[in-house]
Amino acid sequence: MPIVTFLPGFRKVEVSTSDSLMTAAQKAGLAINAVCGGVGKCGKCVMFHKSGRIRFDTERFREFFSQEERDAGAILSCEAYPEDDCQIMVPERTLIQSQQILMNVMGQETVLNPSIRKYYVQVQPPTLATPTSDLYRLLDAISGLDGPTSKQVYVPLEILRVIPSMLRDSGWKVTATIARLPAGYRMIEIEKGDTSSQLYGAAVDLGTTTVVAFLRDLNTGQVIGVGSAYNKQISCGEDILSRVNYSKRKGLGRLQELAVDSINAAITLAANNAGVDRDDICEVVIAGNTIMTHMLLAIDPSYMIEEPYVPVVRRSLTASAGRVGLSIKPEGSVFIFPAVSDFIGGDIVADIVASGMAESPDISLLIDIGTNFEVVLGNNEWMFACAGAAGPALEGGEVLFGMRANPGAIEKVSIDPATLDLRCETINGKKPVGICGSGLIDVLAELLRSCVIDRTGRINTTISHPRIRQGEYFPEFVLAWKDETGIGKDIVVTENDIKNLIMSKASTLAACIILMNQAGITREDIKNLYFAGGFGNYINKDNAITVGLIPEVPVDRIINLGNGAAEGANIALINRKMRKFVDDIAYRIGYVELNAEPTFMDEYTKGTFLPHTDLTLFPMVEKSLELCRLRVEAK
Amino acid sequence: MPIVTFLPGFRKVEVSTSDSLMTAAQKAGLAINAVCGGVGKCGKCVMFHKSGRIRFDTERFREFFSQEERDAGAILSCEAYPEDDCQIMVPERTLIQSQQILMNVMGQETVLNPSIRKYYVQVQPPTLATPTSDLYRLLDAISGLDGPTSKQVYVPLEILRVIPSMLRDSGWKVTATIARLPAGYRMIEIEKGDTSSQLYGAAVDLGTTTVVAFLRDLNTGQVIGVGSAYNKQISCGEDILSRVNYSKRKGLGRLQELAVDSINAAITLAANNAGVDRDDICEVVIAGNTIMTHMLLAIDPSYMIEEPYVPVVRRSLTASAGRVGLSIKPEGSVFIFPAVSDFIGGDIVADIVASGMAESPDISLLIDIGTNFEVVLGNNEWMFACAGAAGPALEGGEVLFGMRANPGAIEKVSIDPATLDLRCETINGKKPVGICGSGLIDVLAELLRSCVIDRTGRINTTISHPRIRQGEYFPEFVLAWKDETGIGKDIVVTENDIKNLIMSKASTLAACIILMNQAGITREDIKNLYFAGGFGNYINKDNAITVGLIPEVPVDRIINLGNGAAEGANIALINRKMRKFVDDIAYRIGYVELNAEPTFMDEYTKGTFLPHTDLTLFPMVEKSLELCRLRVEAK
Repeated sequence: MPIVTFLPGFRKVEVSTSDSLMTAAQKAGLAINAVCGGVGKCGKCVMFHKSGRIRFDTERFREFFSQEERDAGAILSCEAYPEDDCQIMVPERTLIQSQQILMNVMGQETVLNPSIRKYYVQVQPPTLATPTSDLYRLLDAISGLDGPTSKQVYVPLEILRVIPSMLRDSGWKVTATIARLPAGYRMIEIEKGDTSSQLYGAAVDLGTTTVVAFLRDLNTGQVIGVGSAYNKQISCGEDILSRVNYSKRKGLGRLQELAVDSINAAITLAANNAGVDRDDICEVVIAGNTIMTHMLLAIDPSYMIEEPYVPVVRRSLTASAGRVGLSIKPEGSVFIFPAVSDFIGGDIVADIVASGMAESPDISLLIDIGTNFEVVLGNNEWMFACAGAAGPALEGGEVLFGMRANPGAIEKVSIDPATLDLRCETINGKKPVGICGSGLIDVLAELLRSCVIDRTGRINTTISHPRIRQGEYFPEFVLAWKDETGIGKDIVVTENDIKNLIMSKASTLAACIILMNQAGITREDIKNLYFAGGFGNYINKDNAITVGLIPEVPVDRIINLGNGAAEGANIALINRKMRKFVDDIAYRIGYVELNAEPTFMDEYTKGTFLPHTDLTLFPMVEKSLELCRLRVEAK
Repeated sequence: MPIVTFLPGFRKVEVSTSDSLMTAAQKAGLAINAVCGGVGKCGKCVMFHKSGRIRFDTERFREFFSQEERDAGAILSCEAYPEDDCQIMVPERTLIQSQQILMNVMGQETVLNPSIRKYYVQVQPPTLATPTSDLYRLLDAISGLDGPTSKQVYVPLEILRVIPSMLRDSGWKVTATIARLPAGYRMIEIEKGDTSSQLYGAAVDLGTTTVVAFLRDLNTGQVIGVGSAYNKQISCGEDILSRVNYSKRKGLGRLQELAVDSINAAITLAANNAGVDRDDICEVVIAGNTIMTHMLLAIDPSYMIEEPYVPVVRRSLTASAGRVGLSIKPEGSVFIFPAVSDFIGGDIVADIVASGMAESPDISLLIDIGTNFEVVLGNNEWMFACAGAAGPALEGGEVLFGMRANPGAIEKVSIDPATLDLRCETINGKKPVGICGSGLIDVLAELLRSCVIDRTGRINTTISHPRIRQGEYFPEFVLAWKDETGIGKDIVVTENDIKNLIMSKASTLAACIILMNQAGITREDIKNLYFAGGFGNYINKDNAITVGLIPEVPVDRIINLGNGAAEGANIALINRKMRKFVDDIAYRIGYVELNAEPTFMDEYTKGTFLPHTDLTLFPMVEKSLELCRLRVEAK
């Protein structure tokens, strides 16, 4: 049975020779115009015959076409039948509606429009009368399939060298893979026969700790495999600063190698999951922070960790996989997200893409909190960003019983203001062994509501309750008694822990307020508040506002992006137009250097109160705390 | 004494601090507008201060400039003085006339506009307040010198990797080398300090036998060194066909290597001549025949020697020197001339450039004769070309005493029709050892004028003269008696030699006539007839017409191009705009395949008469032969 391929989308369908091409198109999922119902009367179902044998009575339907259309192979698809495998071009006007494929990528809608395309072409062999070059005939056939024109395509030497034998050995039937790059098109491979169904790309989130790769079929846009790997650079230092220092001592080579290895490991897992040969992956899109992407490309990141903190390169980069060292198709391309500054990297730009905030007139605030925080404020017209050190407290560092979000970590806490009875939830329900970031925010908020701590974070040791006691160095509050825990000792939060937490949250809040001041907006103008990264997934939004980690906005405006970096990379992989857009975003963002910002210390100091010195910025929190106070006092 | 550099042309001059910048500019050879005579009154001598220290009273001359101009550093050059090394931009309007430098390249005029530029920039170091990336600051400085804008320049990974240390180690003073490629700009090197005076490129004629390299200073356009080398591929076969057969047996690798080696050898000689480091050469432009350039790039040429004779690639190619294997700057670029067909190669396209025929409305005929002939007919609106085998006779092959144009070869011959006395000139004046192409044409013409041979080339053995005799196989004419020669035997031309010569000239003439018919023109329409290659340098133009090697045109319209391939390559090296033009030329030429041309055999047969069966095509020759006949008969 003949296989009919419909262009330009390369939809294939196997049909019998008695099926009309209109029927075939419908089986392939195309909605075809046919006012007359497919009886050769209305002339709306026009298509163009590109290759292969078909039956069609050109004379009978002459009147429907101009000479030019006839020359281009115009047919009425309801009256044409495939005799053999053939390629048929469907012009847009023949479709009931434009068949742009909208993809839902982790919550964001985008159009399927990858930068890599495959063209299966049946090249006309040369004759004495048409002795044009192999390359020209190949490119001519590609442009006949609605591909780029011959002059637009750059063909590297390596490909030129295989073209003559490939054409002849394949009986003049080859598949060319063409990448659309910022400055034109580039042929990245030529293969025998029809391989157009195998078109794969990977989106990679290159994190400091973990590397995640999503493998997608670029013909359908769907994820077909996911793989993740530790960032092997950890052997050169846990945090990114120590890795840069490692590179200063021992050179960049090892760090680059490890970054490349980690990405290759994640991609290999994803490819194995999908049962795809790694060599069939044509493209990788990578989002990572500025230092990580510098190290991946062996560009010296040293100057980013000293004043005045400048990256070598900010803009997006496109390089061949071979040059970067990635184990995909050697001439495949690698796209690396642009950065705004050394502290606002490609990962944050990808977060912005994932949020959609750069396309909306609504003002959004995007916050990524870890050891460092990054904050972006803006909409489709303007954007500001800043970054700074949050300190490790919100990730459990510098807190006596603080820990990362691992099993046994207290992640949710509620306290009865009357009895100070506690309810804890731990990760995986295990006996508590410590407390992680989201739990700490809860403790802070609940202690404040219970009037155990005041707005400066001091524990009221005049309250007589077994949970409130003087510890070795500081007053402390007991979260779990030793027989309840998995570590055989009481788990407490000390006044010093609380001070460290407040310092962390104060700097994040100050950053938000400085950007809001810069833009001249108030918290009421913020229509969406996005949490990027893992932190937002578990945090109690109410409590985050109560302690003044973030400005007060209605809770339903707070959205968890989750892994926004991965999501943004996936969107750019699927829709090449987003790549130009990410550069625009990166250029458009006004970076506010907090170290050079005179009001920062002042805003920071104001933020060291819970939630802030100025309660008019937190009116709902003020009311709620007042109610709590009354209730506690009434007790 | 301060050195002042005038942009955008990078003209440098050393002057005293009491010389005004106008004086400095005049010393640097710039013609500056100064209606008031340089006394600060007319405001015509405006320049822009870009870097370094100068003295200029901005307030005093405030009225002459807009705020925007003042911000850009506008000064009146007659009232400004250098304090230290500085860079001054001279806008075009300040020059009395546009300072486009016209170069005379081997007889053709072209504009100095190389594709490679160097930009010496003093980059602003970053501060906390301006923490833009290294790359951006570098590119910004370049665009400030009238260079391409930041977004236009592609910077390969290898360069990105050295930028941060290079900027800091040089005190932020670097020279960036930027190539303009077909699809944008590419940074190919960054160096410490000011190296802008060292900007070199090479033009290469890649011949089957010889490779010639011209090294040029691209700041001035002048040739500073020439080198030539044998094409080392000769070890794989003397003629190009045997080399292609060698590649079929043993692969292309060796042939590529030898082509690269030969070019490197010629470039090295040229660089040594000029005292230039080979690594300072930024660009090479290469013109060669289609098979040679395919072999240079390791692209299989096999299919060019079998029907239907198709090259793999026709269009011009730009590749990095590293990928091609040339020993210049590794990121330097290599431009290879486009071909029209496998028989009309980049060497012929370069000939066309050298002739200027593609820019003129006058119709020209260009002929390159060797073992093969290539013929191009046309003007700035249309062009046709064809090629074919001339046979070796015109280069001395298949002729009993034929030889190449080496010392001792008879190169000029005249015969007294009355006495058949001979006057021969040999190359280097040595005793004759054989006869080369130009000598053979002379013999043919002179024997015809003396009625020793008839128009079919038969020797009239009825003439009783010692020089006319029956040889071993054929009748023959004695050119030199054995005691006059350097080989101890009589040097003769046989009737068979004459037959072979006529076959060679007949195919060349047929090609010319077919193109003329194709274009619908007559010999009177031909305004220029160019001989490319060595053949034209020595040939007697009158005799070439008399024997019917070329159509009859007035002799003063015949021009020897000499090494047109080298000339064309030099023009494209100096003026990058010609590169787009050569692709246009190559695309524009209609290639006429003589093997597929039904009238070829007919035209060829007509051409086997001297000069042609139809004497109305050679009216002057007819008259002159008639006069000769009368004179001989009157004797």
